[in-house]
Amino acid sequence: MTETFKFHTEVRVRFAETDAQGIAHHATYLVWFEVARVDYLARFDGGYPGLQERGVEALTTEAHARYLGPARFNETIAIGVRCTGLRGARFRFEYHLTRGDDLIADGWTGHACVDARTFVPTRVPAYLAEAITAAERPSSS
Amino acid sequence: MTETFKFHTEVRVRFAETDAQGIAHHATYLVWFEVARVDYLARFDGGYPGLQERGVEALTTEAHARYLGPARFNETIAIGVRCTGLRGARFRFEYHLTRGDDLIADGWTGHACVDARTFVPTRVPAYLAEAITAAERPSSS
Amino acid sequence: MTETFKFHTEVRVRFAETDAQGIAHHATYLVWFEVARVDYLARFDGGYPGLQERGVEALTTEAHARYLGPARFNETIAIGVRCTGLRGARFRFEYHLTRGDDLIADGWTGHACVDARTFVPTRVPAYLAEAITAAERPSSS
Amino acid sequence: MTETFKFHTEVRVRFAETDAQGIAHHATYLVWFEVARVDYLARFDGGYPGLQERGVEALTTEAHARYLGPARFNETIAIGVRCTGLRGARFRFEYHLTRGDDLIADGWTGHACVDARTFVPTRVPAYLAEAITAAERPSSS
Repeated sequence: MTETFKFHTEVRVRFAETDAQGIAHHATYLVWFEVARVDYLARFDGGYPGLQERGVEALTTEAHARYLGPARFNETIAIGVRCTGLRGARFRFEYHLTRGDDLIADGWTGHACVDARTFVPTRVPAYLAEAITAAERPSSS
Repeated sequence: MTETFKFHTEVRVRFAETDAQGIAHHATYLVWFEVARVDYLARFDGGYPGLQERGVEALTTEAHARYLGPARFNETIAIGVRCTGLRGARFRFEYHLTRGDDLIADGWTGHACVDARTFVPTRVPAYLAEAITAAERPSSS
Repeated sequence: MTETFKFHTEVRVRFAETDAQGIAHHATYLVWFEVARVDYLARFDGGYPGLQERGVEALTTEAHARYLGPARFNETIAIGVRCTGLRGARFRFEYHLTRGDDLIADGWTGHACVDARTFVPTRVPAYLAEAITAAERPSSS
Repeated sequence: MTETFKFHTEVRVRFAETDAQGIAHHATYLVWFEVARVDYLARFDGGYPGLQERGVEALTTEAHARYLGPARFNETIAIGVRCTGLRGARFRFEYHLTRGDDLIADGWTGHACVDARTFVPTRVPAYLAEAITAAERPSSS
């Protein structure tokens, strides 16, 4: 598989996240994507809260999820996550959700940085853009 | 029954609100209580948003729920709601949830008005205290 | 606009659905899509519960949302919804969310009918496929 | 303080759990209570999933929470949890939520074991009642 994720985090399915089909409700996956983003960014100088302290908010502008297999109560789901497509105010995250060896979902989200007060788009701060670029740089062989 | 509610609203159980026991998850009832409070207050000069526009926030300080019977997907739940115990910054709401003739839950929540910027307690605004007192006054016979 | 929706429903933004950005959290939109699907299907012989009573479950296999503008507490959001792409076990729903004249989000979801016990794919029941096809047929002029 | 909890777990406040007041929504605390119960029970022979495998469900019959201070995005909340009042089919959990040295909330939930198919009350299984009693026994000095 060419799709490699250098960063992983995990969630355990909460009972409150299940629905009457006996599986995690599909809207919950967007919450897990967000948890994974926050964990991913936490390595970089204050993470998402650090971004907010600089007066920058990150909006979610688009979200996509494919559900390939169910997730059930109390199962541990590993989430591979990476940031791609940094360009001006915009960036994108991709996600792979696995339970053991099974890919149970994948997806991506689009984001834009805005001034926290005016909601006017603003470039991804340089410190963060550089840290993400370095983190996602392919290893040389 | 001596417990009469002059105001009622209703919710329909969303699929996302159910859990793997096939019933509405118990935390959802606090969300329904809140929906009922907002509907109750909407009759009074701008309702809860009107309170916020005056720089006042209402915090929830306590919540209690008794679950007497299940609520299932797509069922319509009637919520009787009333405001009691207005005193300074504090007030309290009570709730009766019925499906047809069955009482399926009841509960109450405690609240305090605070200044929206400082979170310092502030009296319930007079216009609202008076409107609630008038609305809850027992009818003369 | 050529994108016409014959069926609309609406939701009012709950306080519990907002987040610390002061707007409805983006995962909530998938819950609203689901509310809109259930309302859409309710016109057809028992709706989604009727499908379940026939031993058929509808899984969500894919979801996509674009967020074009914020939705705030207590705002009423109109949802245009239609069913497209019925093919064997699969079908798709499309959504347009507007507040007044503003399109604030759109999206689509993919679904598959399965046997409720075995989760083996099964054709969309004929009664439902026919009712949807009739409902979505373009009006003659 | 005489209120000692032998078992603790923790949650980190998710962004999706915050509301437009900038704090974790009060209904979320019931979800955290549930996470804490599941973690508490996980030490005992399969935990809550093990209970379900034996054909027993645990219903929530009552819930109470006091909110003493706000919880904000990304804060880590420690939850002290203990099981008390085992009696026939019924049991009760108590919770203390702290952020650093601050008690930010406390609460309790009431529960009843039922047969998973019939929802008829059934005694808490002996293996679990004994394990909980042993775990909660005061240490001798």
